[in-house]
Amino acid sequence: MAATGHSVTSMPGPSAPPEGGDPFLAACRGGFWRRTPVWFMRQAGRSLPEYRALRGSGSILSAVRQPDLVAEVTLQPVRRYGVDAAILFSDIVVPVAAVGFGVDVRPGVGPVVEHPFSGPGDLSRLRPLEPGEDTPYVAEAVALAVRDLSVPLIGFAGAPFTVASYLIEGAPSRDYARTKSLMYRDPATWNALLETLADMAATSLRAQVEAGAAAVQVFDSWAGALSPSDYRRHVLPASRRLFAAVADLGVPRIHFGVGTGELLGMMAEAGADVVGVDWRVPLDQARRRVGPGVAVQGNLDPAAVVAGMDVAAARARQVLRSAGGRDGHVFNLGHGVLPQSDPGVLAGVAALVHEETESPRTRSPRTGSPATDSMGTASP
Amino acid sequence: MAATGHSVTSMPGPSAPPEGGDPFLAACRGGFWRRTPVWFMRQAGRSLPEYRALRGSGSILSAVRQPDLVAEVTLQPVRRYGVDAAILFSDIVVPVAAVGFGVDVRPGVGPVVEHPFSGPGDLSRLRPLEPGEDTPYVAEAVALAVRDLSVPLIGFAGAPFTVASYLIEGAPSRDYARTKSLMYRDPATWNALLETLADMAATSLRAQVEAGAAAVQVFDSWAGALSPSDYRRHVLPASRRLFAAVADLGVPRIHFGVGTGELLGMMAEAGADVVGVDWRVPLDQARRRVGPGVAVQGNLDPAAVVAGMDVAAARARQVLRSAGGRDGHVFNLGHGVLPQSDPGVLAGVAALVHEETESPRTRSPRTGSPATDSMGTASP
Repeated sequence: MAATGHSVTSMPGPSAPPEGGDPFLAACRGGFWRRTPVWFMRQAGRSLPEYRALRGSGSILSAVRQPDLVAEVTLQPVRRYGVDAAILFSDIVVPVAAVGFGVDVRPGVGPVVEHPFSGPGDLSRLRPLEPGEDTPYVAEAVALAVRDLSVPLIGFAGAPFTVASYLIEGAPSRDYARTKSLMYRDPATWNALLETLADMAATSLRAQVEAGAAAVQVFDSWAGALSPSDYRRHVLPASRRLFAAVADLGVPRIHFGVGTGELLGMMAEAGADVVGVDWRVPLDQARRRVGPGVAVQGNLDPAAVVAGMDVAAARARQVLRSAGGRDGHVFNLGHGVLPQSDPGVLAGVAALVHEETESPRTRSPRTGSPATDSMGTASP
Repeated sequence: MAATGHSVTSMPGPSAPPEGGDPFLAACRGGFWRRTPVWFMRQAGRSLPEYRALRGSGSILSAVRQPDLVAEVTLQPVRRYGVDAAILFSDIVVPVAAVGFGVDVRPGVGPVVEHPFSGPGDLSRLRPLEPGEDTPYVAEAVALAVRDLSVPLIGFAGAPFTVASYLIEGAPSRDYARTKSLMYRDPATWNALLETLADMAATSLRAQVEAGAAAVQVFDSWAGALSPSDYRRHVLPASRRLFAAVADLGVPRIHFGVGTGELLGMMAEAGADVVGVDWRVPLDQARRRVGPGVAVQGNLDPAAVVAGMDVAAARARQVLRSAGGRDGHVFNLGHGVLPQSDPGVLAGVAALVHEETESPRTRSPRTGSPATDSMGTASP
């Protein structure tokens, strides 16, 4: 690889381009190639009119069983926004639903479980995932999407904690009291549950990569509800198990959660190549917390997109500045696209990130004016 | 005052007791007197059977107009738990509701606004609060409660940002997109709104203190939704205005929010004597972030209470350890009591905190065994 690490002064040289010259994969590996890559969490979704036209109102768990539909929905944001990566249209509860745990995703609500997980007797309801039998449509959709994509496809899975929280709470929660009660009171069952979910996630990611995904993202969306000591003791081991189980695939592994300011170092330690950061922690601080050798992804506030192009542009430039250099930075929102977002603003943000960071005519993200020196000087 | 600052080795000496020898007021001033004080946010509320028996199912905005009821509900947790402070039973939207903004608090939902604030034309809907005319029942309830209380009463108000978020969103929100849009796009209206709300909060706090409240807490519950730069630019000035406006009252000022790990320093800077911390940031780190001379309040995870006494006791001891000494520590939960909490566990936690920290027979919070040396050695 030509460029790795977080040197803020390195510029792409005449040597062989990293990862076949792909901006997204280069950034995931800590480097930089041509431009800072950008994609948006939930870029395939309700904010796109072409998505709403195609999808109707059914559960996403029915939609994901239609590979043609999934491939098309996965491609839509790439066409519309010119983003540097696609992410498979799916849901983190697909594997547990597929082995028959009895979970549905209610539109406007989220995952709802008919009989929530409440104790050791429920462990037997989670048998190992067999992707070829249980979720053949996932690999088919990946293959279809990859065939038509000009950018890398990101496969994904839910992290053990976040999936466990849905299974235990039975519905979206604000306090995770049931989840934490099980975690505190029955660590043996808790650990067995998290290991089972780690293995299911790893199996699912492996199938997605074998079908053509070029990177994976693990969503531990609600890990930020935990104290650092709880995360270290009760969650990190299973997440580490998941990341280790997919290490041999050789694809970049992204690890994302919301409100994880105190956990970023451990989320890197779990085995991530890239740590996703929400807008609460400026990227220069996030870099320090994840440590050297780990890239960062983020972190425009999705609300800034809703506020319109002027606001979004100013904030996007601020994100580029606080990234302290282009190496190892994947531009993204700090959480998913909000449904009321204007697609035109997202397209504008993608174009701005490209313009501000593309070489050889490097531009300074601080001023927007052409600059020949490194962007490493543009720290906030 | 006999004991101030964060010296972890100071022990109460034979000199005059701080704040008339009250554990809560002494801790708020950075000191320690007799024991670490404890109270619980939302200690007056749905977790108490005697509360449910008294309250019925109506809106809290009707209940707060009945001073006898409010005083009784305010006293209930003091009797039940033996806590070191009471907090007035009320709601942060009482002042805006009282000037006729059209807000109700729907049980199980939260504040709901009929015509949300959407622009400069709505500023005139918020006239200055005149407590004697608009909310006479608040001062009456404070006076009634204080008459029967053996511990200090905390008055409270909502911080400008959090109250603004309710007025703008019209209902509880997860993303605060409308609030942030107004903040980003129309800073003049935003600032006018926040200053108006700061002044209303200050007026309300002043009336509560004049009626007998011995401390005040400002709830900026949702400030953690903001990036540090947004908080500094768009929120801190109004919160500072609020804290400055009540400085002359001479009572301790507590400043609390959830998910505010990145904001703790600024929440102290706003003018707080005590900063409330949720369970995401260990207290020793919180102490470093708020800086010297500012006390901390917190931070047991409310979910640990739901998990039962064994878990709650272990976690409460962990909180005492990470506080790194008894000076300037008010024990509390990291957020409000969850409705499903067992009152017996809360009583047990209060007793444990007292036992573990009381002098002169000082006990080490690390081991629970008697210790004659300072607890300053018990940092984690």
